[in-house]
Amino acid sequence: MKIIDGGVCAAKGFKANGIHCGIRKNRVKRDLALIYSETPCTAAATYTTNLVKGAPLLVTKQNISNGYAKAIICNSGNANTCNANGVEIANLTCSLLAEKLNIDANDVVVASTGVIGQPLNIEPIKNGIPSLVEGLSDNGSEFASEAIMTTDTVKKEIAVEFIIGGKTCKIGGICKGSGMIHPNMATMLVFITTDCKISAQMLQKALSSDIKETFNMVSIDGDTSTNDMVTVLANGLAGNDEIVSDGEDFKEFMKALNTVTVNLCRKIASDGEGATKLLECVVSGGKTLEIAKTVAKSVICSSLTKAAMFGADANWGRVLCAIGYSGANVDINKIDVYFKSNKGTIAVCKNGSGVDFSEEKAKEILLENEIDIIVDLNDGEFNSTAWGCDLTYDYVKINGDYRT
Amino acid sequence: MKIIDGGVCAAKGFKANGIHCGIRKNRVKRDLALIYSETPCTAAATYTTNLVKGAPLLVTKQNISNGYAKAIICNSGNANTCNANGVEIANLTCSLLAEKLNIDANDVVVASTGVIGQPLNIEPIKNGIPSLVEGLSDNGSEFASEAIMTTDTVKKEIAVEFIIGGKTCKIGGICKGSGMIHPNMATMLVFITTDCKISAQMLQKALSSDIKETFNMVSIDGDTSTNDMVTVLANGLAGNDEIVSDGEDFKEFMKALNTVTVNLCRKIASDGEGATKLLECVVSGGKTLEIAKTVAKSVICSSLTKAAMFGADANWGRVLCAIGYSGANVDINKIDVYFKSNKGTIAVCKNGSGVDFSEEKAKEILLENEIDIIVDLNDGEFNSTAWGCDLTYDYVKINGDYRT
Repeated sequence: MKIIDGGVCAAKGFKANGIHCGIRKNRVKRDLALIYSETPCTAAATYTTNLVKGAPLLVTKQNISNGYAKAIICNSGNANTCNANGVEIANLTCSLLAEKLNIDANDVVVASTGVIGQPLNIEPIKNGIPSLVEGLSDNGSEFASEAIMTTDTVKKEIAVEFIIGGKTCKIGGICKGSGMIHPNMATMLVFITTDCKISAQMLQKALSSDIKETFNMVSIDGDTSTNDMVTVLANGLAGNDEIVSDGEDFKEFMKALNTVTVNLCRKIASDGEGATKLLECVVSGGKTLEIAKTVAKSVICSSLTKAAMFGADANWGRVLCAIGYSGANVDINKIDVYFKSNKGTIAVCKNGSGVDFSEEKAKEILLENEIDIIVDLNDGEFNSTAWGCDLTYDYVKINGDYRT
Repeated sequence: MKIIDGGVCAAKGFKANGIHCGIRKNRVKRDLALIYSETPCTAAATYTTNLVKGAPLLVTKQNISNGYAKAIICNSGNANTCNANGVEIANLTCSLLAEKLNIDANDVVVASTGVIGQPLNIEPIKNGIPSLVEGLSDNGSEFASEAIMTTDTVKKEIAVEFIIGGKTCKIGGICKGSGMIHPNMATMLVFITTDCKISAQMLQKALSSDIKETFNMVSIDGDTSTNDMVTVLANGLAGNDEIVSDGEDFKEFMKALNTVTVNLCRKIASDGEGATKLLECVVSGGKTLEIAKTVAKSVICSSLTKAAMFGADANWGRVLCAIGYSGANVDINKIDVYFKSNKGTIAVCKNGSGVDFSEEKAKEILLENEIDIIVDLNDGEFNSTAWGCDLTYDYVKINGDYRT
């Protein structure tokens, strides 16, 4: 497997584009994205667990219920959520695009991200669709990734190449996500494309299994968004024998998918609103997988731990505290904690109690911008990793006046 | 019932003091508090639910297992938690104090607050106890409340007078709590004294019932501390017939206790680390009490809602979002949301969708420093209130370099 360029256009037959259509009046940036495969694709998706669900999610769920799709359209600047006419607008977006592309409206995946509870005006979208479609190109992934950004500060894309049954397949993705990010889906939109041939059922199985260990283990601020969606389209142009069941081919596909998703998770976490550091909590020695996951998520979500990491302060007591209130059944007296970065590793807690360590060395390690918080529960065989970021002044700044 | 002065010394027979003994080398503030009743008291307490429990909690639990106590000693600057010799130090603190007061060591309630995982040096405590005891006075509540502060910016005390069986009783309390505050106990220490005569069993019943609707409904940052404790001592000097069962007298006592605890909850929330605003989420119309409570807590804990309140931004979508991911079984399409302060009330969401409102008026309301977020679930008869505060730059500042 190797990492390649191209994002969502890396896989054969996918084109993309992103334009500024004017959804936000006071901000000139690309705000409408399109990904398109002329060849029909099998499609899979997962959605937010929030009871408040953006209208686009309801429409997408309906549209891909037959397992197929050809296009993904996404606007930023407005979430089209909690609006009385939300479903109508999302459906209209699909039909306007479908008409221009000459496809069925229910072959469109639709997504939105931005402010909740403000009516989404269809006019800029309607006026933008012609140039959006006309500008589709094999190297449009970057424009698309830019168009789905909200408070994101960097574009997020990745692609990899892998072999299935002697055929070279590609899989790539773009995503956005910066705030309102929390386990079990979050304000993240992830669009993945592949030319691997795989049935809709197995594609959904792969995605549903993968996100449990990837996107559901990312938290920026504990707020689970209303609009999260992860979608994969597979157009089969790589020419491999269709994956229709478990087996070696499926395993290979899962591995490639996981490489893409972990990469995107790390990108989302390190671009968390206001973040200066990517935090990775690596838990080992859990009695069960659930315990390892609960501990990893609790540490990554602790505001006090996050603020300490911002200050490069080796305040490991906050890590232990977060493990203690996680609800996981652990033996505190067995726990070891380490901090690690590319400046080295330092042990700060053994058997649940503090150990002498060099504050100077700890500071040096924690001043880096990728920090691993390593927790060994010493109580079993199960491991888990969660991703997050530090809590900074800029998080507050960004969210104190997001709408204005 | 009327509010009176005196804090923990308002009730007959209680004296208090607070001194600087030098636990933190680099900070000259009072750091050792004492509350004392010469007359034996019935005692009740509740403790953190964190699996990591401060050593003082373990010792206190043991000491008051017989239902009685006479003194409370508390240091700030060091939590005496996650230290190999923690229990030993906490026991030593009790016996040193007991010797000076000429009481039994197991009549002492001991508490600590501050940094986790750094050994607590007994020397400053040992050296401080003589002057701590000698300085006990009828108006020492303020010194005691000052001595238990960590990142608190204001002293927190309250007392009320009430009548039971024709006898005038008093109940008062002091508390500390600013960060690491989350439902189900939090870094809060609350010490309450009363001269009402009540059995240990009924005192515990009153406290355990009260905290479910008060201290367990306060959240500053979602981090449940290792050292939380709420303690009540009742010395019976008011001369009422002892409360030994449910009935009118018990109800009166509960009402007075609740007045004290709600007042302290509001003080803790409004002094949350870095807070500029007290937030109160008032939920009505819940199908069950559990649903109303879950919704109130979820809104109060939402970082995005908290940051929006800091920015006086009427971003009600974040409130709805927090209700949606709370896990409570609600019908989103029935929900109304209002913002209220002493500048008025404004409706921002009806039946789960946005309504037109004056942004100018909303701003005026949200610029106040006590904000009510009013949620009507329109789905039943149950109500609940939770308290919290906004998320500000200063929260990050305070917690980015707490240890240094």
